[in-house]
Amino acid sequence: MLVVMKSEATEQQIEAVCAEIRKQGLVPHPMPGAGRTAIGITGNAGPVNPLPYESLGGVDQCIPVTKGYKLVKREMKPEGTVLDIRGVKIGGGKTFTIIAGPCSVESIEQMRTVAKFLKNLGVGIIRGGAFKPRTSPYSFQGLEQEGLGILRQIRDEFKIATITEVMDTSTVEDVAKSADIFQIGARNMQNFSLLKRVGKERQPVFLKRGMSATMEELLMAAEYVLAGGNYQVMLCERGVRTFADHARNTLDLSVVPSVQKLCHLPILVDPSHAIGRREFVEPMARAALACGADGLMIEVTPDPDHALSDGAQTLDIAGFEALLKGLRPLAQALGRTIN
Amino acid sequence: MLVVMKSEATEQQIEAVCAEIRKQGLVPHPMPGAGRTAIGITGNAGPVNPLPYESLGGVDQCIPVTKGYKLVKREMKPEGTVLDIRGVKIGGGKTFTIIAGPCSVESIEQMRTVAKFLKNLGVGIIRGGAFKPRTSPYSFQGLEQEGLGILRQIRDEFKIATITEVMDTSTVEDVAKSADIFQIGARNMQNFSLLKRVGKERQPVFLKRGMSATMEELLMAAEYVLAGGNYQVMLCERGVRTFADHARNTLDLSVVPSVQKLCHLPILVDPSHAIGRREFVEPMARAALACGADGLMIEVTPDPDHALSDGAQTLDIAGFEALLKGLRPLAQALGRTIN
Amino acid sequence: MLVVMKSEATEQQIEAVCAEIRKQGLVPHPMPGAGRTAIGITGNAGPVNPLPYESLGGVDQCIPVTKGYKLVKREMKPEGTVLDIRGVKIGGGKTFTIIAGPCSVESIEQMRTVAKFLKNLGVGIIRGGAFKPRTSPYSFQGLEQEGLGILRQIRDEFKIATITEVMDTSTVEDVAKSADIFQIGARNMQNFSLLKRVGKERQPVFLKRGMSATMEELLMAAEYVLAGGNYQVMLCERGVRTFADHARNTLDLSVVPSVQKLCHLPILVDPSHAIGRREFVEPMARAALACGADGLMIEVTPDPDHALSDGAQTLDIAGFEALLKGLRPLAQALGRTIN
Amino acid sequence: MLVVMKSEATEQQIEAVCAEIRKQGLVPHPMPGAGRTAIGITGNAGPVNPLPYESLGGVDQCIPVTKGYKLVKREMKPEGTVLDIRGVKIGGGKTFTIIAGPCSVESIEQMRTVAKFLKNLGVGIIRGGAFKPRTSPYSFQGLEQEGLGILRQIRDEFKIATITEVMDTSTVEDVAKSADIFQIGARNMQNFSLLKRVGKERQPVFLKRGMSATMEELLMAAEYVLAGGNYQVMLCERGVRTFADHARNTLDLSVVPSVQKLCHLPILVDPSHAIGRREFVEPMARAALACGADGLMIEVTPDPDHALSDGAQTLDIAGFEALLKGLRPLAQALGRTIN
Repeated sequence: MLVVMKSEATEQQIEAVCAEIRKQGLVPHPMPGAGRTAIGITGNAGPVNPLPYESLGGVDQCIPVTKGYKLVKREMKPEGTVLDIRGVKIGGGKTFTIIAGPCSVESIEQMRTVAKFLKNLGVGIIRGGAFKPRTSPYSFQGLEQEGLGILRQIRDEFKIATITEVMDTSTVEDVAKSADIFQIGARNMQNFSLLKRVGKERQPVFLKRGMSATMEELLMAAEYVLAGGNYQVMLCERGVRTFADHARNTLDLSVVPSVQKLCHLPILVDPSHAIGRREFVEPMARAALACGADGLMIEVTPDPDHALSDGAQTLDIAGFEALLKGLRPLAQALGRTIN
Repeated sequence: MLVVMKSEATEQQIEAVCAEIRKQGLVPHPMPGAGRTAIGITGNAGPVNPLPYESLGGVDQCIPVTKGYKLVKREMKPEGTVLDIRGVKIGGGKTFTIIAGPCSVESIEQMRTVAKFLKNLGVGIIRGGAFKPRTSPYSFQGLEQEGLGILRQIRDEFKIATITEVMDTSTVEDVAKSADIFQIGARNMQNFSLLKRVGKERQPVFLKRGMSATMEELLMAAEYVLAGGNYQVMLCERGVRTFADHARNTLDLSVVPSVQKLCHLPILVDPSHAIGRREFVEPMARAALACGADGLMIEVTPDPDHALSDGAQTLDIAGFEALLKGLRPLAQALGRTIN
Repeated sequence: MLVVMKSEATEQQIEAVCAEIRKQGLVPHPMPGAGRTAIGITGNAGPVNPLPYESLGGVDQCIPVTKGYKLVKREMKPEGTVLDIRGVKIGGGKTFTIIAGPCSVESIEQMRTVAKFLKNLGVGIIRGGAFKPRTSPYSFQGLEQEGLGILRQIRDEFKIATITEVMDTSTVEDVAKSADIFQIGARNMQNFSLLKRVGKERQPVFLKRGMSATMEELLMAAEYVLAGGNYQVMLCERGVRTFADHARNTLDLSVVPSVQKLCHLPILVDPSHAIGRREFVEPMARAALACGADGLMIEVTPDPDHALSDGAQTLDIAGFEALLKGLRPLAQALGRTIN
Repeated sequence: MLVVMKSEATEQQIEAVCAEIRKQGLVPHPMPGAGRTAIGITGNAGPVNPLPYESLGGVDQCIPVTKGYKLVKREMKPEGTVLDIRGVKIGGGKTFTIIAGPCSVESIEQMRTVAKFLKNLGVGIIRGGAFKPRTSPYSFQGLEQEGLGILRQIRDEFKIATITEVMDTSTVEDVAKSADIFQIGARNMQNFSLLKRVGKERQPVFLKRGMSATMEELLMAAEYVLAGGNYQVMLCERGVRTFADHARNTLDLSVVPSVQKLCHLPILVDPSHAIGRREFVEPMARAALACGADGLMIEVTPDPDHALSDGAQTLDIAGFEALLKGLRPLAQALGRTIN
């Protein structure tokens, strides 16, 4: 941390800050400048607490230097984390992994149609919400336990990996029996009780960026899971909230290379939730592949116009097939394999 | 809802939309215009689902008209909800209620100092976090059960009402024993499992607006609690996330009169978390009173510079006393009473 | 427009709104619903002014339906506008046009180095700022007239098209002599005097989206130029301002397909200004191509670390060559040609 | 500035950075830490250019310390700038100055009605737009020269000070003859040509914050005017653009005390444009007074429902009188005088 003194700060005030730094067991480095003095702090293991200094006389501001995350840092695993979900690889730069399926699990027939179709196309992970976070209490809240049962059945029948959202600590165990991957939704990215709880599990976690989360907050949320001992985490950009109103959210693709530089975890993109309109899912899926994302989460269902949730952004089966067909030559040009 | 047709839409397409509307048990009202036709829909109880229409041929867009919330609507209780917490009134327009205390419960001594001081000043509700939502897993997470015990003791000793944050469904019962009011933090505003759970309790809920929640989402989150049968809810504006970087968040005071027009629940303001800097808490507290808020939540602790969390925004005892002193003539000028 | 009445509105109030609509020469279409009445308005040429209705008794809200732009609408030119700048095509879907060059024109030697290099790579349009919009009055403001002279010389010498920013109405004529394309910067997107002025010229206009401009505002700004008689306009996404702090701005690529659906003008992407960091320009350039943008504006200069402005985001010559090399197979896979 | 080295940076790399710092005529202060080394820089007059260092081997990031503005800094005039506009004082903390009038000048009759009314209420500055920045080229653009003539006539007739927006450099001279204060609108806050031009005038400038301008950018825009030699500048908060949709913009009142701490110029608030809805102007005006703003700009016109622009947010004469009446006891309680 750097403590910047006011231009009118006295020698006594500077010395008082240095004394306080020493009192905290750290080392002060005063640097007198033309206009004012700045005092560097070293000797700290993690981030320095600015509070003891901020209110001392003559202090103008405290500028943090060290980041708060450790286990998710790229330096911890420079080659990048590669997850293996029932044989499907995620991460590592060579593969581009597709996760697809309906917004909500609605029936065994619906899920069978989708699963069969996905298997035929070589997609190895199916999504489907059993518990649905809905803005209104009067909207469809998911099939809940029945939905989990359907997911289990689909997994057994089709040998396809499953992912579904877990919304609270009390359903973690039930979800663990039906899903190969825990999905943490955007609204729960900073539900720290839930992050700690899935940190104790050994199933992978798919963590969606919150609607107004900075990249650092996303990495810190992942850090919660890793700090609990669960190192199998992948991140997902799904659009952030801004003033722009031409799409449901603003898809922030530049977070992909930024995360990849700083963090060893895979990062996927969910263009369906980001854009909220079916017709623009395909161009944004291509952009996600092109900027280096590790994969996609895409909503697809046989009859999106009658879906119980999010139909406007969900592709039908032909639309998804077209999307996948469009991605293949792009992936090839980039030296990557779609799985 | 209003279905707006494209300018090139044919008569057949318009009739197909009308047929679909009738199929859903609703009544279509086609209005041919100079440029294009719009079709109104009536006969619906709540919001109309746009999905059956959005993808029909010739449809340009669907514009919602009816709002999704019901129980929180001002029309349900035009005179406004007034809560009574151990004799302290919140809401109704005449009172301006102060909730104050440290960010975190740190010790019985700390809480005694604050409680004694608040009682002397006529403040009847003390805050203090036992479970703390922290961006980093390595930051102080609160005294947890020990903190709840301290809160209980303070309540008994000082006959002061208590409020503390509840972070998950599994600790609702414990929190209920120590706190007169459940606080739901900004990061949990759309933790729907938690909202449903406190909806089953009969203790009041203090619901903070999420960092990027629209007013409608805030009202819908409150609707979750009321829909569960718990009508004792108050809202809190605590700043939203924007590009502006001179304060920790952007305090959106205009939400206060907007909520009051549409909703019968009290709305308070937390300038401490909104601004994040002690020196600006007082002017924003005055602004909150002036724009008609029902009260404040303010952070105060005896020694903020050594607080375990959020010290930079926390007032010391003298600072809080000065703030309160500054509010009194303002409240009087506005015909309101501080309690 | 749709006038939505309050649920408690009386028959008299509804009739009064209808009477006012008729008074404005328009046709009211009252639609009684279960909860409340909405009144459609037809007979209008452009957008209906909500003011006469908003304050009438019993009116809840007025919802606009018709968009304000006309000449930029896709329907006006369904095949899309294709510009031809000294033989370089922009727009139409088949080509992907690169505009490149330094942030600021610094010397004839610098511009010669860049121009020679660009010509060798087949890039036909060079950028370079002569007038620079800088946040600080103490920063380098551009070479101004001398910079324009250098641009003219480069154009003559290398037969390369030029683009440079025009910052005010008083320099439009001078800029017109040196630049084949007028660039309007993000800060001037709603400088309506300037938009009207370049609307009178016959040279193409490159219009950058403002930092907090909605898509509709961008289209309306372009409408100003077309309304003046200058139909040669291309748009540019260059990042918007949000809370996200991992990049200088948030590149909003989803605006590309959205604009292309509604508007016939080409839209390019400037990843250099959007991201602000050299190392992330290349992945975002690939994403821009993949999502269907009509081209790129890229900053490149021989010695970016000593550039007088924006060096941190500017590629060096090798970096630009690598970027272009990386784009070629992608363009081929997408059936497009880079020019 | 602080150059933070990567943890793996070598001694040679650190020395190379120090050498480059010395080469720029500055003094390096390397501070070896537990994890990594940071290098402070002193000897600089203004901000240090990070470019020579950012791309050197082993450098992680460059953190700026010194601010870019000088003349607007509070330290330059600790007592604060007080403007005197035809006898009306603005700034200094004791007065609270009201500027009021219609959005657009529409006729001499309209302006006479407003001016007479304002004079009676003791309001000494009238606003009215002659040139109007409108999103659409098809909206009313103002009476232009005729509007300026009306403003001149009103000033002569009523001995009231006038303020009107100047939109480009070419009309500065004309505006100067009709207006006592140049208004620079939010869309032109970074129209640097215009800022430089009014910097050469000696009439006061009323500078509105841009829709997505940070506080520092606002101060830097004012710095442009002062740097030109015109020290008579006042600032205005008028709402910023965010995701929130209950108001036209998000009024950011916390910028008021923040600006007042750092800058000696007066800062006013425009609640009319910020909120965009008449009914919420009054509570936000009270909040502006309470948080310490130096005054208000309020839209008022005799018949807002038929105004040619911005009628929805404009008060009628009775509404304005009520607002003013509501402010007086508040001002008294705060020890301030409304003028």
